[in-house]
Amino acid sequence: MGVKLIYIFLGGLFMKLLEERIIRDGIIAPGNVLRVDSFLNHQIDVPFICELGREFYRLFGECGINKIVTIEASGIGIACLTAQYFNVPVVFAKKSKTSNLPSDVFSAKVYSYTHGVTSDIYISSQYLSAGDKILIIDDFLANGAAVSALADIISSAGAELAGVGIVIEKGFQSGGELCRSHGIRVESLARIKSMSVEDGIVFF
Amino acid sequence: MGVKLIYIFLGGLFMKLLEERIIRDGIIAPGNVLRVDSFLNHQIDVPFICELGREFYRLFGECGINKIVTIEASGIGIACLTAQYFNVPVVFAKKSKTSNLPSDVFSAKVYSYTHGVTSDIYISSQYLSAGDKILIIDDFLANGAAVSALADIISSAGAELAGVGIVIEKGFQSGGELCRSHGIRVESLARIKSMSVEDGIVFF
Repeated sequence: MGVKLIYIFLGGLFMKLLEERIIRDGIIAPGNVLRVDSFLNHQIDVPFICELGREFYRLFGECGINKIVTIEASGIGIACLTAQYFNVPVVFAKKSKTSNLPSDVFSAKVYSYTHGVTSDIYISSQYLSAGDKILIIDDFLANGAAVSALADIISSAGAELAGVGIVIEKGFQSGGELCRSHGIRVESLARIKSMSVEDGIVFF
Repeated sequence: MGVKLIYIFLGGLFMKLLEERIIRDGIIAPGNVLRVDSFLNHQIDVPFICELGREFYRLFGECGINKIVTIEASGIGIACLTAQYFNVPVVFAKKSKTSNLPSDVFSAKVYSYTHGVTSDIYISSQYLSAGDKILIIDDFLANGAAVSALADIISSAGAELAGVGIVIEKGFQSGGELCRSHGIRVESLARIKSMSVEDGIVFF
């Protein structure tokens, strides 16, 4: 019990470190865009993201998860570095139906508020099945479009969605509430209450 | 010395396991395409890819590498799982200049033989600098277009390219020879001599 309490305390401490990192390195751009290119989305601070992975394992490690699902491209690194603690594979949804993709796929539509376009995402039906217990991992949760599309695909496969692990939730947008209102367990390591593009300030 | 020999022996053993995995799970498609979706390109067998990462560390661990560079999307998982052994960050080149990318970038052109198109790849100039000693990690080496483009970007930044770590080299295509003829150290964990789409056979 004592060890578990220390573990939870360390988790809380680490989430504080993540908030500080966002404040220090995050850049707020117009359209509610938060750029964390320096450690998450373009350059990946691998030792730091490993700690995020450990924290996701602390949160979901006892859920019997046998597969982690994410979406290319910026979810892949976080998902892989998390999956090693669970000792499970990662399946990432593809954004374009390349010539390399098999014909038998599950697909769903995602609207990107950042880029203003709707696109399809795909997962081969070979890599999701009815017995699977899935954890979705992604970098951001804003309007919930990507998570909803992944949840639809998981449901189409008859697999079970055990939860969603998010690095940064924009708590002032509707995605988190939408997912939780559908009974999905969402755990976000940092939850932003508001951001100001004028002052460049993030509030947790 | 004895420990080092055992280490090299285990490396050799692991490369045998990789060859066996390619023979068992790889699917040969027309146009010299080898699909390894089940463990590398769509579903990622994370515990297995961690062993690949360890092997890259055995090969390049003493080169003073401070950053790993790869290209989205399928390089990211391998690069991140490798980078943790080096305790260094990953920078992945982006294929589209999204609104999230800063304006000051290094770019290069890549011709994809699989999809028959030329596209630009980008790395923000913030994440590569003259003092960097870089290891490129990628899933495949065929005609060498991606590796050459990454090497150009690294050169533009004035950084040093210490080597290239490839999971699967198509030895019957010109990329490996091209890179090595330019004095680049290329280490491939599996090197395919030829493949037959009619018989579905891969030769090492």
